[in-house]
Amino acid sequence: MRVLHHYWLSSGSRFCRVMLAERKLEVMLKLEHYWEKPKAFLMLNPASTVPVMVEDDSTVLVGVWPIAEYLDETYPDSAMITGTPAQKAEIRRLTDWFAVKVEREVVTPLVYEKLMRRLTGEGEPSSTVIRASLNNLSAHLEYINHLAERRKWLAGPKLSAADLYAAASLSVVDYLGDVQWQDWPEAKTWYSRIKSRPSFRSLLADHVTGLKPPAHYTDLDF
Amino acid sequence: MRVLHHYWLSSGSRFCRVMLAERKLEVMLKLEHYWEKPKAFLMLNPASTVPVMVEDDSTVLVGVWPIAEYLDETYPDSAMITGTPAQKAEIRRLTDWFAVKVEREVVTPLVYEKLMRRLTGEGEPSSTVIRASLNNLSAHLEYINHLAERRKWLAGPKLSAADLYAAASLSVVDYLGDVQWQDWPEAKTWYSRIKSRPSFRSLLADHVTGLKPPAHYTDLDF
Repeated sequence: MRVLHHYWLSSGSRFCRVMLAERKLEVMLKLEHYWEKPKAFLMLNPASTVPVMVEDDSTVLVGVWPIAEYLDETYPDSAMITGTPAQKAEIRRLTDWFAVKVEREVVTPLVYEKLMRRLTGEGEPSSTVIRASLNNLSAHLEYINHLAERRKWLAGPKLSAADLYAAASLSVVDYLGDVQWQDWPEAKTWYSRIKSRPSFRSLLADHVTGLKPPAHYTDLDF
Repeated sequence: MRVLHHYWLSSGSRFCRVMLAERKLEVMLKLEHYWEKPKAFLMLNPASTVPVMVEDDSTVLVGVWPIAEYLDETYPDSAMITGTPAQKAEIRRLTDWFAVKVEREVVTPLVYEKLMRRLTGEGEPSSTVIRASLNNLSAHLEYINHLAERRKWLAGPKLSAADLYAAASLSVVDYLGDVQWQDWPEAKTWYSRIKSRPSFRSLLADHVTGLKPPAHYTDLDF
C-alpha cells in the first residue's frame, strides 16, 4: 500500500493527507521524527523533511510540489490544480504561499517554540519569536479574509490545492491555540467549510502526546 | 511582449531567464527593487518577491513553481520536466531543493550580508552568518558533486529544470566569489557544461553596480 511518511503537526503532511482523502485514496501513515534524521528516512529524502510519499511501484515523491503535481497527473479526474493557465498559476501561487512563506514565517517557528524545543530539550520558548510569528499570522489571516471575501474559494470559483494547503497550515496553528477566529469572519466561514469536509475530519482527530488542542479545535461550530 | 520582473542576483529570476532562453522565447526584463515593496509591484505580487512573469494576454505568473509548470504546459515540445512520473518527481524535488532549501540556507543570507546590507544601509556584514552559509554551501556542493558523479545531468539522463535552477543558484554565489570549484571536480565539470550553453551566456554578462564578480566568473574554462 501507498505510504506517507509524515509528522502530526507538519502542514505539508496534513496537506498530502487531505489531498489523498479528497480522492478517497488509501494510504498508510508512517510517523517520522524527521528532526532526528533517521538513517532509513535519509535514504528516501536526504533533506530529512516530511512529507514523503512512496507508491506501490516504489516511486518516491518528496515534498509538496512533486506530490501535488503527481497526484494531479495520476488522477486527473479529481485534479486539484485545474482551469485556465491563469487559474492554475493562481492555485500554484497560493499553494506555494502557504507551503513556503507561511511555513517559514508562522508555522515552523511556532511549532519549534511550542513543541520542538520540549521534544529536543532546547530550552525555554522565546517570547520574541512567538510574538513575531503571531504578527505574521495576523497578516496572513487578513490576506485569507480578503481572498475569502472576494472569491468562493481562495484561488477562485472551485475548491483547489490552495484551500487544502491553507487549511492544513491553519489547522496546525489552531491546534496550538493561536488563531483568533473572531477577528477574521470571512476566513472563519471559509475554514468552517473546509473543516466540515470528510477529508479533513481525520486530521482533527490527531493528538500529540503532552500537547492538548483548545476546546474549539475539532468543533465545526467554533 | 512578455515581461519578467526580476533582480540581477535573484536565483529564481535567473532560473526563469534561462528557462525562457532555452526555448528561445523573448522577454523584456524589468528590474525590481523588490525589498522596497514598490506599490505597482505589490499589485502583481503581494509577497513582493521576484520572479514575476506577465504574459501578453496579462496572465500573471508569480514564483518558480507556477512559472516552471506554466512554461512546460504552454510549450510542451521544449518541456524541462519530462519522463516517467518518478523522473518528473525527481526533477521537481531537486528544483524545489534549490529554490527553497539552498535559497534559505545559502543564497538569501549571502546576498543579504554581501549586498543588501549595503543597499539598505543595515550595518556591517555578519561574519557568523557568512561562515554558516558557506558551510551550508559546502554541503550542497558535495551533494551536486555526488549527483554529477552518478548521473549525466542532476536529475537523470536529460537536462532538466533541476540543472537550470541549480546552475542559476550557483551563478549567484559564484558572482559573490564564494565557490571553491577546485574542491568539487564533478560539480565543476557539470557547471561548465551549463555555463557554455547559449541560454546561460546573457546571465553571466550581468553586472551589479559596485560589486565586481571574480575573474573566473564568466570564463568557460575556470
